[in-house]
Amino acid sequence: MIKLTLNVNGVERMVLADPESTLAQYLREGLGLTSVKVGCGTGQCGSCSVIVDGKVVRSCSRKMGKMDDGASVTTVEGIGTPQNLHPVQLAWIAHGGAQCGFCSPGFIVSSVALLNENPKPTREDVRDWFQKHRNACRCTGYKPLVDAVMDAAAVLRGDLSREELLFKAPADGRIWGTKYPRPTAVAKVTGTLDYGADLALKMPEGTLRCALVQAEVSHAKILSIDTSEAEKMPGVFKVVTHKDVRGKNRITGLITFPSNKGDGWDRPILCDEKVFQYGDAIAIVCADTEANAKAAAAKVRVQLEQLPEYMSAPAAMADDAMQIHPGTPNIYFVQKIAKGEDTAPIFAKAPVVVEDDFYVGRQPHMPIEPDTGFAFLDEEGRLHIHSKSIGLHLHLYMIAPGLGIEPEKVIMVQNPAGGTFGYKFSPTMEALVGAACLATGRPVSLNYSWFQQQTYTGKRSPFFINLRLAADKDGKLLAMESDWSVDHGPYSEFGDLLTLRGAQFIGAGYDIPAIRGEGRTVCTNHAWGSAFRAYGSPQSEFASEVLMDELAEKLGMDPLELRYKNVYRKGATTPTGQDPEVYSLPEVLDTLRPRYEAARKQAAAASTAAVKRGVGISVGVYGCGLDGPDSSEADAELNADGTVTVFSCWEDHGQGADAGCLGTAHEALRPLGLAPEKIRLVMNDTNLAPNSGPAGGSRSQVVTGRAVAAACQALVEGLRKPGGGFRSYDEVVAAKLPLKYRGKWTAPGTACDDNAQGSPFVCYMYGIFMAEVAVELATGKTTVEKMTLVSDIGKINNRLVVDGQNYGGLAQGIGLALSEDYEDIKKHSTMVGAGFPYIKQIPDDMELLYVETPRPEGPFGASGVGELPLTCPHAAIINAIHNACGVRITRLPALPEKVLAGLKAKA
Amino acid sequence: MIKLTLNVNGVERMVLADPESTLAQYLREGLGLTSVKVGCGTGQCGSCSVIVDGKVVRSCSRKMGKMDDGASVTTVEGIGTPQNLHPVQLAWIAHGGAQCGFCSPGFIVSSVALLNENPKPTREDVRDWFQKHRNACRCTGYKPLVDAVMDAAAVLRGDLSREELLFKAPADGRIWGTKYPRPTAVAKVTGTLDYGADLALKMPEGTLRCALVQAEVSHAKILSIDTSEAEKMPGVFKVVTHKDVRGKNRITGLITFPSNKGDGWDRPILCDEKVFQYGDAIAIVCADTEANAKAAAAKVRVQLEQLPEYMSAPAAMADDAMQIHPGTPNIYFVQKIAKGEDTAPIFAKAPVVVEDDFYVGRQPHMPIEPDTGFAFLDEEGRLHIHSKSIGLHLHLYMIAPGLGIEPEKVIMVQNPAGGTFGYKFSPTMEALVGAACLATGRPVSLNYSWFQQQTYTGKRSPFFINLRLAADKDGKLLAMESDWSVDHGPYSEFGDLLTLRGAQFIGAGYDIPAIRGEGRTVCTNHAWGSAFRAYGSPQSEFASEVLMDELAEKLGMDPLELRYKNVYRKGATTPTGQDPEVYSLPEVLDTLRPRYEAARKQAAAASTAAVKRGVGISVGVYGCGLDGPDSSEADAELNADGTVTVFSCWEDHGQGADAGCLGTAHEALRPLGLAPEKIRLVMNDTNLAPNSGPAGGSRSQVVTGRAVAAACQALVEGLRKPGGGFRSYDEVVAAKLPLKYRGKWTAPGTACDDNAQGSPFVCYMYGIFMAEVAVELATGKTTVEKMTLVSDIGKINNRLVVDGQNYGGLAQGIGLALSEDYEDIKKHSTMVGAGFPYIKQIPDDMELLYVETPRPEGPFGASGVGELPLTCPHAAIINAIHNACGVRITRLPALPEKVLAGLKAKA
Repeated sequence: MIKLTLNVNGVERMVLADPESTLAQYLREGLGLTSVKVGCGTGQCGSCSVIVDGKVVRSCSRKMGKMDDGASVTTVEGIGTPQNLHPVQLAWIAHGGAQCGFCSPGFIVSSVALLNENPKPTREDVRDWFQKHRNACRCTGYKPLVDAVMDAAAVLRGDLSREELLFKAPADGRIWGTKYPRPTAVAKVTGTLDYGADLALKMPEGTLRCALVQAEVSHAKILSIDTSEAEKMPGVFKVVTHKDVRGKNRITGLITFPSNKGDGWDRPILCDEKVFQYGDAIAIVCADTEANAKAAAAKVRVQLEQLPEYMSAPAAMADDAMQIHPGTPNIYFVQKIAKGEDTAPIFAKAPVVVEDDFYVGRQPHMPIEPDTGFAFLDEEGRLHIHSKSIGLHLHLYMIAPGLGIEPEKVIMVQNPAGGTFGYKFSPTMEALVGAACLATGRPVSLNYSWFQQQTYTGKRSPFFINLRLAADKDGKLLAMESDWSVDHGPYSEFGDLLTLRGAQFIGAGYDIPAIRGEGRTVCTNHAWGSAFRAYGSPQSEFASEVLMDELAEKLGMDPLELRYKNVYRKGATTPTGQDPEVYSLPEVLDTLRPRYEAARKQAAAASTAAVKRGVGISVGVYGCGLDGPDSSEADAELNADGTVTVFSCWEDHGQGADAGCLGTAHEALRPLGLAPEKIRLVMNDTNLAPNSGPAGGSRSQVVTGRAVAAACQALVEGLRKPGGGFRSYDEVVAAKLPLKYRGKWTAPGTACDDNAQGSPFVCYMYGIFMAEVAVELATGKTTVEKMTLVSDIGKINNRLVVDGQNYGGLAQGIGLALSEDYEDIKKHSTMVGAGFPYIKQIPDDMELLYVETPRPEGPFGASGVGELPLTCPHAAIINAIHNACGVRITRLPALPEKVLAGLKAKA
Repeated sequence: MIKLTLNVNGVERMVLADPESTLAQYLREGLGLTSVKVGCGTGQCGSCSVIVDGKVVRSCSRKMGKMDDGASVTTVEGIGTPQNLHPVQLAWIAHGGAQCGFCSPGFIVSSVALLNENPKPTREDVRDWFQKHRNACRCTGYKPLVDAVMDAAAVLRGDLSREELLFKAPADGRIWGTKYPRPTAVAKVTGTLDYGADLALKMPEGTLRCALVQAEVSHAKILSIDTSEAEKMPGVFKVVTHKDVRGKNRITGLITFPSNKGDGWDRPILCDEKVFQYGDAIAIVCADTEANAKAAAAKVRVQLEQLPEYMSAPAAMADDAMQIHPGTPNIYFVQKIAKGEDTAPIFAKAPVVVEDDFYVGRQPHMPIEPDTGFAFLDEEGRLHIHSKSIGLHLHLYMIAPGLGIEPEKVIMVQNPAGGTFGYKFSPTMEALVGAACLATGRPVSLNYSWFQQQTYTGKRSPFFINLRLAADKDGKLLAMESDWSVDHGPYSEFGDLLTLRGAQFIGAGYDIPAIRGEGRTVCTNHAWGSAFRAYGSPQSEFASEVLMDELAEKLGMDPLELRYKNVYRKGATTPTGQDPEVYSLPEVLDTLRPRYEAARKQAAAASTAAVKRGVGISVGVYGCGLDGPDSSEADAELNADGTVTVFSCWEDHGQGADAGCLGTAHEALRPLGLAPEKIRLVMNDTNLAPNSGPAGGSRSQVVTGRAVAAACQALVEGLRKPGGGFRSYDEVVAAKLPLKYRGKWTAPGTACDDNAQGSPFVCYMYGIFMAEVAVELATGKTTVEKMTLVSDIGKINNRLVVDGQNYGGLAQGIGLALSEDYEDIKKHSTMVGAGFPYIKQIPDDMELLYVETPRPEGPFGASGVGELPLTCPHAAIINAIHNACGVRITRLPALPEKVLAGLKAKA
């Protein structure tokens, strides 16, 4: 223990601390300043940034023993409060800088330190600063953050008024289509929104802290688990193993397709017989403190018999490969596609045929916030599980049988989540904390380290694709043949669905009359495949969008014109044979064309002997919703004070469920003339809100949006007086009319058949990406200098949210194209190691253009948005690299050494 | 566990809590909002006040299970921050509303709620509000708080500007004599100053939480202590008993007088053979949580043999009383006084003689903050003890031998203290946490409940006094004879010194040529006697000041004129034969006279048949310092940035050590022209600052003030350049001159001899109190309608501090006179039960007048202040009661039933 004096947020405080503890720990656990977020915990993400004596310091990496006595420390709590926001905070809100919000306090602190030093920075100064201080953001693509700093600087200099940063409601009071700030924005920018680890910290005395005993091999037989030594360690309450799990000890995939050869019960809660992947949980130590739990976890002895590790689909598909799940073949699901005429004859006589192999790998989601959750029993014996789940009701049913508890006795709640990007479509620790809570009878909490986040949550499933396109001499597509193998890791949940996405999205956007193909889901021992933004399309469309460029090259056509010729027009159908809902792609491409042509000229002009510049494009398409008749429910209730509460489980990855729900409800409630702040949201608690379905596949704005609108419209109609006007609360009560209305909506879609034909989605999103890149010939290093996205996502609910989704998706596309990977468990287990894109990897120049074609089925004309910007931006970049230097990368990521090898091969 | 949503300080938060826990616990332990102070813990003090849905709620008494979902909660953190103070906070600073500051957040919260409801309250509205919400303050006498609310209301209404509340430095930059706000004020009004329990909460993981096993009888033999069952309780690390204490297991009184029959080693750290008083500590349970420690403490089995309990001096002095400490007589010290000629012949022939018996009882200190402390070992094996100690070096030497550790290995630190008023002149839990830390090797913390605070810390020692005065027919005092017995409880520490105070202060203020008397210290089984503000004088002077009124009555003289005739003038000596330093009492009385005469007239005019009004006065005198050659040390150091750090152990009860030290240092450093904010204070840590002696007996401003001034003056001289001007830091370093200077000062006093003759104090404080009271004849209830104090405490360092000390002392005097007691351990163990004065018991009308006679020995002419206002205000009240209704109360407190009995006896 040491004693020192620190001036924290303007006040001298006596500090007593373990010299080995970190400043972040002291600020969070000691002073309760939980604005200080611990993301990576190793100084790579900047979310723990604070100002120490004027300098930005990553507090997770500063030992208390290294703090100067008398030092001054500023956290975001000392920068501004909800009642008195600092200009940086105001600007952050105005520009939608806080999406998930987890990195916001660190960025804001860092920005304030910058502006203290440099009151009039250029945009590049700001970017250099964030790069230097490793302020990492996974949601926003950074551009809105730079916009915010520039405006805040102007306010601080007196060049802009605070008022200009405040949202101004239009005259008609309508917030639909505006930049109304998301309801959680103030909490996010003031560091007062509690994320899972913050909430866990604030749980009552007696809460047990968990640590996992995890496998450090990828495939093994478990011979024995000895917890005796661990049980004797200080502070240990219990070591929970599979023997303590009351139920089937399996998480079920639930929606297994009939032709799936597995039964969906393949994922253990706690490993019993086998280890299937690196990180698999074998035991949970429950102790008084996390440090004690971890120390004891190191004492659990697990005897293993190592088995062959199948770390990719081809390896697991080999004839001599053993069954990873004995009794189930490693290829456990096959999805065919057959549209139109047989393709073999067409290919045989087609004037032009192109073919290539493509690989899009194990992109890691890399939220800044590591996975976290907790569980407790209430006085009625119900098990409450809090996590980052974006599929609350879904997960409830996936884990209850394994835990041995009736689903009615389980309540699932989503904590504010510091980014998921889809990995939380799968349960991660829900069943672990549930099992620990049931086994101990005590509240329990579990925080993953960032290493655990990376190594023991699902990843994007790699697709190995062979693709062929046949066209006539004018470039009109005639047929497509596809073959794709999906490496889905060891657990089957949603693996069949993902494989179907290959059929749905390879070649999407184009009117291809004849398609044949086959995909398969392969069980491997690498990270289990979980949902990731744009689910299946970045793999599928990468193949067709790069191959379209190869086709254009072969035809001597401009890639834009080739696409323009083939995109959906009236009468065209999607690969699944569906009418594509709206036909805006030509308009989308027309919107891009002048920019594209200028960019091509500019690239040619700006290329040098050392640096070649190029322009690439790609079409992106995605469907909103779960396949077929997707449903959602929401409630709306009139309160005594005249406000309305909207209840939904519209889960929030950080994408803006709060803004989405509020905007939709406000639009639906407009006849009542309620100001938006009179609408209260009760969200993401299965005990309080109905089943709105999971927040994935850009379905929420469409499907849950319709449910919310339905509930609100039912309420409006219920309140309507025969003679005009609306009943007050008292009048409703007096008339014994209902105060609360249920809204339910089911999408009128049809699931795909065995040949992948059907109308799975009722709303689609369309877009075209343009990448402008520079390739350094000496190193092969690619820099994306500009990204442009022209999209049609229907009518826009909230422009701040939509812009933010698009910027952020583009940034993830750049990462996917150039740097991100999780193939090498060791090397790729840190943010830097896994190629996380910092600000200087993302261009400041990103242009978003919208074609707002109203969607017939979308609420107030809206479609979804979240998946679109990550459908295929990486193909545009890869095509741009080829345009710049003639190197065609077909296996991502396009690391400099790969490009360099291509350059050398060409030379 | 329950989950709910609360809007805390403007932000919605997800809340997970034990429904049986309190809102205060959740806010403090969950959210880290430690502005919410837990004082009494039972809803009697209001320091935990928060606003819940617009209403003031005492959060210590609100169960989380009773909170409405969606409720809004405001703590002082949500009212204003150091960067953005709310007008109430600004006004609190401007009026010195935060003394110890412990009650400030609760008051500020309560005030904001009031002003939300009533933007233009009257002073009486404010008082009614604080009374209704039980906002209790022990420091300020409430008046500055009402002043602050009135000004804040004016600012909020726009009738006063914020600027008018800010301190404005005079043109010459001098802060001496001004209302410069105390350095800790901002932290106090924003709830960011961490008190002991706050710091304990913020200590690192692994800190053990202690609970005491305490005696529930007052005198017993210990037969056995069985900890086996307790050791097995959940979370218990160790149960510490006397067997685990390495040293002598005794706290020593250290400064035992030679004629003391005890040896000063009578107070056990942990009881071994006997229990000496209710609450005595028998064992310390160290566990992971306080709840677990308490649960286990209830399982320690102690077998006792009950012994006769001697609950007052007369009982313990009885011939048949057993020796409480075997081997030491219950009367263990006798102090005689002999001044001038023998008094017997004078009394025999004196024209007028008066005699009476007086009793001033066991006044409890009643700080709002219960006692609290903690201990830890540093990496060098040194034991750090943090507590509310106001005698750091003193306590170090008092406890080290008992703990069995070398004093060099002990570091004592004072935490910010929520009021002590002297009880912390004695060690309380220092040795307990020290023993627990040494026995466990772990950091430990111990918080007393308010019940423990009241029942197991020292109290004012009751004096049983018989007093006689002889005067000539004109009222000139001729002689005094005194006899006093001091009930000092079971522990001898400072008992002899206190008994000497009887000799020094009975009859103080008057030129009495001949005095004879004897006092004795008596060991009893009631609460141990500890220092209490004005130490000894409230007992001593009560006797002489009431008897002076009896003399005036007998002489038919006006009490003011009788006093005027006898107060010190040139040539007079104190009861100890000392020259009284300055001779300002006549001027002090002259200042009061016109007010006194007006008050007398007003009282007569305002008396009715039901309510009689009266006016009483009393003279108050106290000496500053420890008896004789009292010493103090301080350091001053020039820092590289040109600031100066002043190091001292000027402990802070809440009286304003920070302001005292800063004001003195700033005055001494004036040649350097430093702004006050350029002076840094390092205080109250024996590891960092030298021995400045304890903060008691109003010695700090005088003795430590001189040391601080000496250090600063030495620094100024050291920096002085031969050619004029001062060296910079770099110049000092280059010249290899010292940067740090020690200031030491020893008061040129002499200790009293066996006849109590000597010059123990080099600075005195003088004053006259006037009380205006109303006595309700039907009930005997006395209301103090106004208090006036004319004082001469020399030149005033900080007017805010001095006013605050005086208001607060007067309020404690009213409590002492009318309600406060700790005789009945059960009844008097709560604030309400013990007669704590709430705002409506203290008049809003309190007038302070100053005669600033510069003190030759005081720093820059200052004397002390803290003790003066509690020397004798109660005698003025008692004299006023007699003046109103003819009833003379000589045993305090003057409860209504006592006055009523007097009225009935008279009738």
